[in-house]
Order: sequence, then structure tokens, then C-alpha cells
Amino acid sequence: MGARSLVVLLFLMFILSFSSAYQGKKKQYKPCKQMVLYFHDVIYNGQNAANATSAIVGAPQWGNLTILADKFHFGNVVVFDDPITLDNNFHSKPVGRAQGMYIYDTKNTFTAWLGFTFVLKSTDFQGTLNFMGADPTLVKTRDITVVSGTGDFFMHRGIATIMTDAFEDDVYFRLRVDIKLYECW
Amino acid sequence: MGARSLVVLLFLMFILSFSSAYQGKKKQYKPCKQMVLYFHDVIYNGQNAANATSAIVGAPQWGNLTILADKFHFGNVVVFDDPITLDNNFHSKPVGRAQGMYIYDTKNTFTAWLGFTFVLKSTDFQGTLNFMGADPTLVKTRDITVVSGTGDFFMHRGIATIMTDAFEDDVYFRLRVDIKLYECW
Amino acid sequence: MGARSLVVLLFLMFILSFSSAYQGKKKQYKPCKQMVLYFHDVIYNGQNAANATSAIVGAPQWGNLTILADKFHFGNVVVFDDPITLDNNFHSKPVGRAQGMYIYDTKNTFTAWLGFTFVLKSTDFQGTLNFMGADPTLVKTRDITVVSGTGDFFMHRGIATIMTDAFEDDVYFRLRVDIKLYECW
Repeated sequence: MGARSLVVLLFLMFILSFSSAYQGKKKQYKPCKQMVLYFHDVIYNGQNAANATSAIVGAPQWGNLTILADKFHFGNVVVFDDPITLDNNFHSKPVGRAQGMYIYDTKNTFTAWLGFTFVLKSTDFQGTLNFMGADPTLVKTRDITVVSGTGDFFMHRGIATIMTDAFEDDVYFRLRVDIKLYECW
Repeated sequence: MGARSLVVLLFLMFILSFSSAYQGKKKQYKPCKQMVLYFHDVIYNGQNAANATSAIVGAPQWGNLTILADKFHFGNVVVFDDPITLDNNFHSKPVGRAQGMYIYDTKNTFTAWLGFTFVLKSTDFQGTLNFMGADPTLVKTRDITVVSGTGDFFMHRGIATIMTDAFEDDVYFRLRVDIKLYECW
Repeated sequence: MGARSLVVLLFLMFILSFSSAYQGKKKQYKPCKQMVLYFHDVIYNGQNAANATSAIVGAPQWGNLTILADKFHFGNVVVFDDPITLDNNFHSKPVGRAQGMYIYDTKNTFTAWLGFTFVLKSTDFQGTLNFMGADPTLVKTRDITVVSGTGDFFMHRGIATIMTDAFEDDVYFRLRVDIKLYECW
């Protein structure tokens, strides 16, 4: 091997170690993990105590705790414990629970602020994912963020694209959640 | 080129690839993005329904939903949808909305806990930033955290230094938010 | 030095720069900082105004603001400002305050959703840490996440393993928090 070939080899390695360092910067735009899950919310309306998975726990002065408030539900705080399923069937075996709260937060259209956790217990994954973000609920697909995780999702971060998959009056809705994790550890 | 020069070249490349990997560790103390924004909060007091951008939705036993509670408002939960502007003028064209909640959480001084999102829609940026942190509101400048983002702020993280820029009775306040993002993708 | 030894040296450096880049990916499973802290919560029950460090501020329709609600407190929102101590003694000198909220969020067992901040002021650390996650309170140890920090904890992230260290009726509890930070800056 001559000095010339060595320089070429060296140069290749140089490039390679840079691209490796570049990955180190985590500029990785393809998800390192991805999954699609559904969750189902049945809001308490004063008459469905047995089936309800969520309840209004905060309301503005013009509201109450059994009917979502006027002005696009502005100010309603809802606590939920919703089943998570692999498909869009409410009766499918849950793989976990979505737990936390949503807050309606616009007076002239429907938007919500979300803070909640997916507690996943299945053969495929054991762990939690924490979500936070603004949800303009009338937009077809919208992005919220996955800010952290535990267990199989230790230190993970990413984006969740959510879609309202079903909506019945003000009592039931189903969200499709396309979770794309970009930082995986 | 002799073996000696090769060793020197090699050594330089070695150093360079290390420093590049070091950046990969993200020890970057200069913001990769920075911007200053203002947002304006007008709290509902029972008489300003048209102008109010926020409302009390939770209160301790000694409080109510139109007047911030005694004991430094301890326990008050406020939901807001506040206009964001580029300068300190309430009437400037909004570049987005600050949506979420703040919670007064000390009995013997003013502090708040913040969980909210900047939904930005301007020619300069399209996307969301999510904020979380403790706000000792009487301190001149205080740091909260930017935990995540979407759109132009995909996977970003950083610090927001906030300052009470104006305060009128218990009805209006304006915050100056100096956003410094240290992880940018 | 011959070309052969150069190739060997080159190869070693190549490996080294990769491993360095690998660290750049932050796959670091040993905490870069760790500490154990305790915090103490005394919930307001209508009669302990002087000592209470927290208060119910949201409740479902079947609840109220001085007694935790039926159905495993589902829907109760509690705002707190709790002293943090280095040991399990409520009367030890606080090193900071735990401020934020917890939400009971299951109808058939005890679980809570946590969103709060440690505001630390001691000779050892000055800064804040922000926590978020699901807390199945009957499980001996459970992991929540540290999503961000300020001051000494600028841009930090990690895991907090929490343990109920004491529990007295529905009025007092003490949590042991084992904070392990894996991203330190």
C-alpha cells in the first residue's frame, strides 16, 4: 500500500467519522420507532357514570360539571382515563390507558390543550410516553409532542400526529395517534 | 508526501473528528435560534366577557370563579388564549396565540406554575413551542423551559426568560418572553 | 514508521472516533447527576388552613373542595406548594419547594397524573427541574420523567423514581424522589 492510497483511505475515514458525528447531533428525520394507536373518550354527562372514562372537573363561571360550557367549551378542564387500542374498535382488548387532562382553550373555535400519558402494557411494549401540546381539534391532522418516556421508552422524544377518528355528540370521541419517535436511546 | 506528514495530517483529522463528536454531545451554550415575543392576558372578572382572554376555572374552597382568591390566589387555575405580538402593543397584529393554563401555587407570595403552548403563524415561523415551569412572578426575570416543538420548531428545546412587562390590577398583564433554543435539529 | 503501522494507527483512530460519535448519540445509561430528595404534602380539609400545603381546586360533579372524591378521587385536581427536604423529616430545613399539581385519574384504583417543578435553593444546587408523568400510587416504586431544567439543571433530562415514604389518612403523604439525570449539558 503506497502513501497515495493511504491518503485516499484516510480521507474516506475522515468523511465517515464526520457523518457519524453528524448523527451524533441527532439530526435524524426518520423515526427510530413508530406506532399507531387509538384511544377512546366517553365524557361523564350526569347519566353515564358506569361507562364514562372522563369527567369535567373545571369550568368557567358560565359553565357546570355535566355539560360542556358555551363559547366552544372555553375553560372546561376534563380529566380522563381512556382505553388505548391497536385498532379503532372500542371493544378491542386495551393495550394500555391514556391518562391526564385536556383543556378547551379558545372562545371562538374548538381547540384544546393536552397534557397526558400513555401507560402501555402489552406484549409489544411496557412503558410510558408523555404528551403535551396544542390541539386545534377541527383540523384534520395536527402534531403534538412526545416530551419523554419511561421503560421501553426511556428518554425517548418525538412527535404524535393526531386525527379525530370518530366523534359522537359531545359524549364520545376517538383519536388516532401516529407516534413517531426521533430520539430513542 | 512522506509518512511523517501523513502522521501530522492524521493527527489533525483525529482532533477534528473528536471536536465534531463533542458537538454531537450538544454542549452548545449559544442559542441556535432566538426570538423575543410578548403575550397579553385579560382575565375574566364577571363583567368583561367580550375582551377577556382567560378565565378562572378552578379555585380552592375559599375562592370563586370571578375574583382571584385570597392567600396570593393560591389554588386558582386559569385557562387562557392570549394574543402573541412582536412588540409590547396589545393592538399590534398577533403572530399567534399563547394557549394553556397557569396555576397560582404559593400561599404567602405570588408564584405560578405554567403549562402552555405558543401556536405561531406568521411569515417568519409556522409551528408550536411548548412551555413548562415555575414562575416566581415578582422576580424581575425568571427562566422557564421550552420542552418541545412542532413545525419549524420540530424537536427543539431551550429556555424562555420571562419578564412582567406590564401589570394592571388583577385584570391585565403582559409578559415579555425571550426564547432561546439550544437544541434545534 | 512504515505504511503498515500507519494503517494500524489509522484503524485505531477510526474506531475511537466512532465510539466518540456514539457517545454523541447520548446513549448513556449511567446518570450524569443523581440525588435523592423528599417532599411533604398536607392537603387542605377545611380545618387545617395554617398547615396545609395543598388544596383541592377541581372536582367532578360528585365531589367537593374539602374531601377527596368517591371513586378513588377520580377527577380531583390538587394544587400544591410542598417543602422539599434532604431526609424524611417534615421539620428538616427545606432545600426548596415542589410546586404544581396532581390529578387523580382512575375510577377503580389510585393513580395520579403529575405536572410539577422542583424549585431548589440550597448550597448544593440552584435551579429548577420539571417533572411530568403517570403515578400508579399503589405500586412500590414508579418512574416519572424529568423533562427539563433551568439554572444548575440547564437543559437536563432524566428519570425520577418515586416511592410513597409515608401516608396518613387522606391528609399527609411524603414522597421519596430518586432523581437520575441522563442528559446533563
